[in-house]
Amino acid sequence: MSEANDATDQPTSEKLVELAKRRGYFFQSSGAYGGVGGFYTFGPQGASLKGNVEDAWRDRFAVAEGNMEIDAPTIMPEPVFEASGHLEGFDDMLIECPECGESSRADHVVEDNTEYEDAESLPIPEVEEVIAEYELVCPACGAGLAGQAVETFNLMFDTNIGPGDSQPGYLRPETAQGIFVEFPRLKEYARNQLPFGVTQIGRAYRNEISPRRSIIRTREFTQAELEYFVDPEEDEPPLERVEDVEVRLYPVSEQNDEDGAEIETTIGAAVEEGIIGDAWVAYFLGIAKPWYEAVGVDMDRFRFRQHLSGERAHYAADCWDAESEIDGNWIEMAGFANRTDYDLSKHEEYSEDRFTVFKQYDEPKTVERATVDPDMSFLGPEFGGAAQDVVAELEALAERDRSAFEGDSVEIELEGETHELPVEKTGFSVDEETIAGEHVTPHVIEPSFGVDRVVYTVLHHAYSEDEVDGEERTYLELDPEVAPTFVGVFPLQSDDELEAVANDVVDDLREAGLSITYDDSGNIGRRYRRQDEVGTPFCVTIDYETVEAEETTVTVRERDSTDQKRLSVDDLAETLAAIRNGDREFEAL
Amino acid sequence: MSEANDATDQPTSEKLVELAKRRGYFFQSSGAYGGVGGFYTFGPQGASLKGNVEDAWRDRFAVAEGNMEIDAPTIMPEPVFEASGHLEGFDDMLIECPECGESSRADHVVEDNTEYEDAESLPIPEVEEVIAEYELVCPACGAGLAGQAVETFNLMFDTNIGPGDSQPGYLRPETAQGIFVEFPRLKEYARNQLPFGVTQIGRAYRNEISPRRSIIRTREFTQAELEYFVDPEEDEPPLERVEDVEVRLYPVSEQNDEDGAEIETTIGAAVEEGIIGDAWVAYFLGIAKPWYEAVGVDMDRFRFRQHLSGERAHYAADCWDAESEIDGNWIEMAGFANRTDYDLSKHEEYSEDRFTVFKQYDEPKTVERATVDPDMSFLGPEFGGAAQDVVAELEALAERDRSAFEGDSVEIELEGETHELPVEKTGFSVDEETIAGEHVTPHVIEPSFGVDRVVYTVLHHAYSEDEVDGEERTYLELDPEVAPTFVGVFPLQSDDELEAVANDVVDDLREAGLSITYDDSGNIGRRYRRQDEVGTPFCVTIDYETVEAEETTVTVRERDSTDQKRLSVDDLAETLAAIRNGDREFEAL
Repeated sequence: MSEANDATDQPTSEKLVELAKRRGYFFQSSGAYGGVGGFYTFGPQGASLKGNVEDAWRDRFAVAEGNMEIDAPTIMPEPVFEASGHLEGFDDMLIECPECGESSRADHVVEDNTEYEDAESLPIPEVEEVIAEYELVCPACGAGLAGQAVETFNLMFDTNIGPGDSQPGYLRPETAQGIFVEFPRLKEYARNQLPFGVTQIGRAYRNEISPRRSIIRTREFTQAELEYFVDPEEDEPPLERVEDVEVRLYPVSEQNDEDGAEIETTIGAAVEEGIIGDAWVAYFLGIAKPWYEAVGVDMDRFRFRQHLSGERAHYAADCWDAESEIDGNWIEMAGFANRTDYDLSKHEEYSEDRFTVFKQYDEPKTVERATVDPDMSFLGPEFGGAAQDVVAELEALAERDRSAFEGDSVEIELEGETHELPVEKTGFSVDEETIAGEHVTPHVIEPSFGVDRVVYTVLHHAYSEDEVDGEERTYLELDPEVAPTFVGVFPLQSDDELEAVANDVVDDLREAGLSITYDDSGNIGRRYRRQDEVGTPFCVTIDYETVEAEETTVTVRERDSTDQKRLSVDDLAETLAAIRNGDREFEAL
Repeated sequence: MSEANDATDQPTSEKLVELAKRRGYFFQSSGAYGGVGGFYTFGPQGASLKGNVEDAWRDRFAVAEGNMEIDAPTIMPEPVFEASGHLEGFDDMLIECPECGESSRADHVVEDNTEYEDAESLPIPEVEEVIAEYELVCPACGAGLAGQAVETFNLMFDTNIGPGDSQPGYLRPETAQGIFVEFPRLKEYARNQLPFGVTQIGRAYRNEISPRRSIIRTREFTQAELEYFVDPEEDEPPLERVEDVEVRLYPVSEQNDEDGAEIETTIGAAVEEGIIGDAWVAYFLGIAKPWYEAVGVDMDRFRFRQHLSGERAHYAADCWDAESEIDGNWIEMAGFANRTDYDLSKHEEYSEDRFTVFKQYDEPKTVERATVDPDMSFLGPEFGGAAQDVVAELEALAERDRSAFEGDSVEIELEGETHELPVEKTGFSVDEETIAGEHVTPHVIEPSFGVDRVVYTVLHHAYSEDEVDGEERTYLELDPEVAPTFVGVFPLQSDDELEAVANDVVDDLREAGLSITYDDSGNIGRRYRRQDEVGTPFCVTIDYETVEAEETTVTVRERDSTDQKRLSVDDLAETLAAIRNGDREFEAL
């Protein structure tokens, strides 16, 4: 994580976490039993907001792009993670305090207390040296950590599948593996045509050493991932669709420059100037930016940052993060990587199945092929038990360098020794062969979104305070696209006549597809404040004028301005639905 | 499970599983690594159908009923399951084959090979005896199991949370605990007003000894649960809303009667006649039945069956299952139980929090309260170290039976001995006290749905075969409510003009909110068959008549009848949307 933007005057995170608990957005789970670090429950409002974010993502990244969505198990067997590399390398650096026993992330201890910015990429002995040199201490109790061993800790939650001779299983650390491992079947659904994309929205798990910052770093979270499989030789993204999208970029070159700054540009220009190296990654950044804007991320507090070489997975050709600014810090909300053929090649290597696509040529191709057919009655006596190795060596050589067979004799290497053979005994020949196509291992472009972090950012950027009638007010300026409720409906008082009208209003608005909260308890001011804190864009109050005046009207109050207007009940649903869809504005009513 | 209905002529399960794999409904996960029993992946069609079922459930059981939906973690800490009883008692009976080492469920071995119907409720020694007596064998290899110990096997998947001195955690065996454990906060969101309901749709996990029948008994599955909290003294369900719903019931009395049969009745009559004992359970059965019908469960193959006393949890007041018939067997799709105050009382007992609701009286009540204030200068010398026990005994007696203090002396029991005390030394008095309300432990009514089993049943009941133009055809007669795609759109041939119109049609239909599949590959007959097997209700073909004739028309084909009509492109979207909403019929066009 790089340095933060200008810090805002006041950190709102603490106030947000308090509001989230009070109003049912999210809270630490199992509080009755003291809670467990890194596990959060989304309350009624939070589950609704999160569901809306997921739906918006599905609409954009699955439906609109014509990709397939799947739903795979969260528990997967060990061989999958042997292949993916998670079993061997999905580790964090752990240091345990000799005094209090608290486990901390050694790289965080270093980063938080030295000028090192990317301690995760340092080798363990170096981290141990830095801890000793700087005399770093336990963040929990302050005891010195010098001399304590730094150990690797695998972040996967493990379990056992089945009874008796059970087999080890792991909770997936990313939804992606559930897609990669089923590639042989998924390509059939795509009728073996590249490019195609597969999405999944679901739980992922990382046994974090020190979970922190509420739902930003949890041990159980929700990912929305797209794995887009392309032919690296042929497929090009439809960049023209996103070339004019304006983006703020923070490339490696600027991060490494002391006077470096974020660059305001367009996707098209960034690709042309080589700022974004990978056109497919650029395409998905171009789709992602307006999506984040639509769900309510503040574009003044949003950027794409390129991974430094130390952050990037060794196989990733290019990688960018979508970041949002939270109380002066930038947090990662999504990663966009070209993972090349790494994942599919690994599964091809470790499993019994084929992770390639057969690419048929437009026309069958005629190719020359060099083969050998050695005279075994010569090789046998000459090489004895090594004769088969000689055959293998000759076959490899024919494929590699047919010019070696151009003279009368050919040289091969066998266990460090050079042997010379007459070419006529090798049965070397070059034949023509017609081939219809070839097996291609697709490259994978992966936009990987953290849903909880989008939820957190949207709430944080929506968090607002002002003063109304001399009283402080807190409200969430949520976009209607994601707000749990669009309209709150209140009968002014407990009164049969008012409640009857209110119920009719609720029915009308529901029929128009608007999400409604009905609230008849507490004084009207308190009900407004409750909906303000939940982030409900509009409230409708049914009062005595509604039932007494000739024309049936209600009071409609707008959340952000607190302006109120009297509107006729007859076209209320239509008017509010038009506002919801962006076709009308409350101010102009 | 009781005996099956008339078996259908031909079991379709195997054919369905094959179709599900071929067309992307579901398949065993990690097939490239040989698969793991009990884990299935929903492909593109299956994920869509499952999502539609979940949305339909949410609309009915959360939104329409005004209940709150939450989203809690799947990993929970050990104390939760100590309280819930799962740690101690969530077991199956395991028997291991001495020859091949295969683990089997001992109760299933007994049920499958003897006349015992409910072996799960037998004590372990009796199961061992039955196995020996009947000389039962290993289902895998046929070796004798007599003499093998039957052991209990806890069905929860376990893991460890955090590094170092990690704490044990478990994957939740039901989503319900994520609701119960947060009751102290959820009741605040409900403003301490009973009744209120909380729903959750999410993963649950059971480490089944022998998972079987594809997605019917898996180790990881999706539940949709509603926990409805009621005041057992006061709250009554709005039975009038469902009293006319017709249901087929199979109560305990009929199951225990050799000539017993299912009863066709209404919810109202069943409650009146005491067939359904619990009115709240009856209410939810009345909501569930039309819901199952709407998502496509065949009502001729659907019933509610009451739990036999051996099946019912000891705390459950009444329990019914929703069952569907699959190839002659009845399978459980949902359970409806009155769990009384069991869960909340347990958490109240095991945790530090309060799992009650304070019920304010309409008017404060004045109650008489009998208290004692014993003269310790008398009790001390008289009883020595036991004096405090005497005080406790007197306090209890005053509360229990104030008439005991009416004479001059009062008798108490202490460690089996009777003692007589002068009443004047007890400080007995009766005072008036004003109380505003009382703490009530709500009872919980739980409709618990297995989403995967609904998906399976809907597919199985939709599976159809017929003959079209002399060729056998397979199709899924899915309801538009849940079908992954409503319309398939095909340009007849690869032709720019046809494809342009087809793209316009796709845009129009999408705008009308219909889900679309575009398919331009293969001959038109094959494309129809593909959509038939996926269960797409309608296909629209753009052919040369479309672009050549004066009026722009397309061919619309209906899945079940395979009837085709030419319709104008202009009102195509409107017409199909009307059919989708049930306002028009294809036949009548």
